[in-house]
Amino acid sequence: MKYGFSERVKFLKSSAVRDILKVINEGNIISFAGGLPEESLFPVKGVDEAFHKAITTSSKTLQYGETEGVPALKNALAEQMRKKGIDRDPGNILITSGSQQAIDLFSRVMFNKGDIILTENPTYLAALQVFESYETKVVAVDSDEEGMVISDLEDKITKLKPKCIYVVPTYSNPTGKVWSLERRKKLLALAEKYHVVIFEDDPYGELKFDTDVAPPSIASLDQNELVLYTSTFSKTVVPAMRIGWIVGPHQIIRIMAQAKQATDLHTNSISQHALVHLLEDFDLDAHIQLIRETYYERMIVMKELLDSVKIEGLSYIEPKGGMFFWVTLPEYINTTKLLNEAVKAGVAYVPGAPFYVSNPEQNTMRLNFTNSKPELIQTGMERLVHILESTQMNV
Amino acid sequence: MKYGFSERVKFLKSSAVRDILKVINEGNIISFAGGLPEESLFPVKGVDEAFHKAITTSSKTLQYGETEGVPALKNALAEQMRKKGIDRDPGNILITSGSQQAIDLFSRVMFNKGDIILTENPTYLAALQVFESYETKVVAVDSDEEGMVISDLEDKITKLKPKCIYVVPTYSNPTGKVWSLERRKKLLALAEKYHVVIFEDDPYGELKFDTDVAPPSIASLDQNELVLYTSTFSKTVVPAMRIGWIVGPHQIIRIMAQAKQATDLHTNSISQHALVHLLEDFDLDAHIQLIRETYYERMIVMKELLDSVKIEGLSYIEPKGGMFFWVTLPEYINTTKLLNEAVKAGVAYVPGAPFYVSNPEQNTMRLNFTNSKPELIQTGMERLVHILESTQMNV
Repeated sequence: MKYGFSERVKFLKSSAVRDILKVINEGNIISFAGGLPEESLFPVKGVDEAFHKAITTSSKTLQYGETEGVPALKNALAEQMRKKGIDRDPGNILITSGSQQAIDLFSRVMFNKGDIILTENPTYLAALQVFESYETKVVAVDSDEEGMVISDLEDKITKLKPKCIYVVPTYSNPTGKVWSLERRKKLLALAEKYHVVIFEDDPYGELKFDTDVAPPSIASLDQNELVLYTSTFSKTVVPAMRIGWIVGPHQIIRIMAQAKQATDLHTNSISQHALVHLLEDFDLDAHIQLIRETYYERMIVMKELLDSVKIEGLSYIEPKGGMFFWVTLPEYINTTKLLNEAVKAGVAYVPGAPFYVSNPEQNTMRLNFTNSKPELIQTGMERLVHILESTQMNV
Repeated sequence: MKYGFSERVKFLKSSAVRDILKVINEGNIISFAGGLPEESLFPVKGVDEAFHKAITTSSKTLQYGETEGVPALKNALAEQMRKKGIDRDPGNILITSGSQQAIDLFSRVMFNKGDIILTENPTYLAALQVFESYETKVVAVDSDEEGMVISDLEDKITKLKPKCIYVVPTYSNPTGKVWSLERRKKLLALAEKYHVVIFEDDPYGELKFDTDVAPPSIASLDQNELVLYTSTFSKTVVPAMRIGWIVGPHQIIRIMAQAKQATDLHTNSISQHALVHLLEDFDLDAHIQLIRETYYERMIVMKELLDSVKIEGLSYIEPKGGMFFWVTLPEYINTTKLLNEAVKAGVAYVPGAPFYVSNPEQNTMRLNFTNSKPELIQTGMERLVHILESTQMNV
């Protein structure tokens, strides 16, 4: 039987990252490929107690809930964000089934076929996949270590009239980059000047290694209802709950809630109520501090091994937070082609190419350092370094 | 600030049912409007133990999971469906965030603007909303108490070349109707003859009042991979988990999984693992039997009050299962207009009109009998009967 699918199916691709993950889960491979948090840090006891309380305190918790989210959770989030300078009414928050759903619902209510979205290059793969599934056109803006290059951004805004600028300005996936305060302000000023909406994706903001204060979120600088800001509990509590949120202009959030109603009625409310209890009863700040310290230690182990590689032209951005190293290799190394060999040698990474909107640099890779214990990072990186160095010799 | 929304936003409507629900939750109103299960029946202890086990047995449970769903849950569902004659491989199942998401993902991968979908009239409101949000054209097929009228169905298939036939053949929402075996077979035969996909939505199949065996699902009769079948744990366990599933041709399920990956990565896997434990440790069959008996008792209370109404021309379908009475009143009664008065008198229902694809019958209403205790059904129905009878006198 042949089935007639919709046109938009053409734009759906399985994530390269997830396809690789499927393969490497089988066998004795040390994987730097995923974007998984460390399981041994999961606050099992806190989560267990929070769910117990959520389930047994009131049977209302187990009933159908509001599409917008559990009010107590929206209040707690508003309070949490206010401390970080994002001062918004709880009515401007929509609880989503992970922040991935925030990107999808936003796209659903905003984009028509052919609409232009500006992003960095490379950028978050799964956002690109969502945007493309709505038949939009994603255009890359030049960027450097501080963020988008403002002259190129203004040029592309005026020429292309984009509907939205999508950014991951803090410990980005895949590059680990942090935008400077200056660039954040200039981006916002351009968005104001030309009335373009900014979508600020911030899943990693809490995972900072510096004691320095990171630059404030773009949302916290926004006085004109131009920024939608999304984040998640997947990196700070546990991913399995699938709880994210988005805050933004009421007009947009309200319509996204209507779209969500058609999509899945509402987000799992046992998990939402459990989070309310967790935020009350559990010291999440101390827990996040533990995560930061653990990830920092692992990042340093990986960095030392990267520093030991004897390859002319290898460079990387040292992460100030987040979960990833972004490594650029000499141009003669094609990381997509090298992956098979690496997997045979017992180590996996994600080739950089799929993260590019255009002009993919084939000599890049993303390495995750959060999901392997230091000994494994050591062993895995030794394997990887060996492969890279022998590739060099074979040239 | 004005925002430019996508074209598809025009087709998004807030559910009339949910808007009414918001109002009536405030105040001393007895509501027959919603479609909520009875909270006092929620298996709190079983759910609590299942979540505790899911959270504490393995930290893998709390990590990111597979888009297709937790394998153990898919295996358990395949086994459960096999007992009901739907013999499919677990690889043909996709776990969804409620069965609402199954309808949405299916629509996303199947429908282009202008595609035709055939349904009964009236039919499930939230499915209509999803279909319309994809700019499809929904066309009503004539139906009687046994299901769609086959001659009209064949006529519309040949004339309109529909992409899909959407049916809720067992204890339907809103009419409570059960399709006869004969009609199920004839629908399937036509789908085979003309290669049209059937979407069988079965959230209520377990909620049967008869000891008789209900006609088998259309999916269980399908030998040609034409039927997609969706159901949910919202009515048999608890709605807050948002766990549904869909089974169908592998080709379609695989592409729906790709769409799901872009939409929300995967369904809450703590709830999925909890369900695996619940199905192992808890006597769900006995629990469902308790639900059936409780709902049957309530249905009878409502029926007796309906029988007491002294209005020429009132008729209803006696539910053999499910959650709703569908009541037709004399043509001079407009239930949408009457709702305000009813709410003032302390009782709420859903007017029938929004459930129609076309030619709405304004003199219909849907009454839910599962979410009010018998005493409240008694009081609420007395209020409703009083309103209806005084409307008659005012004519």
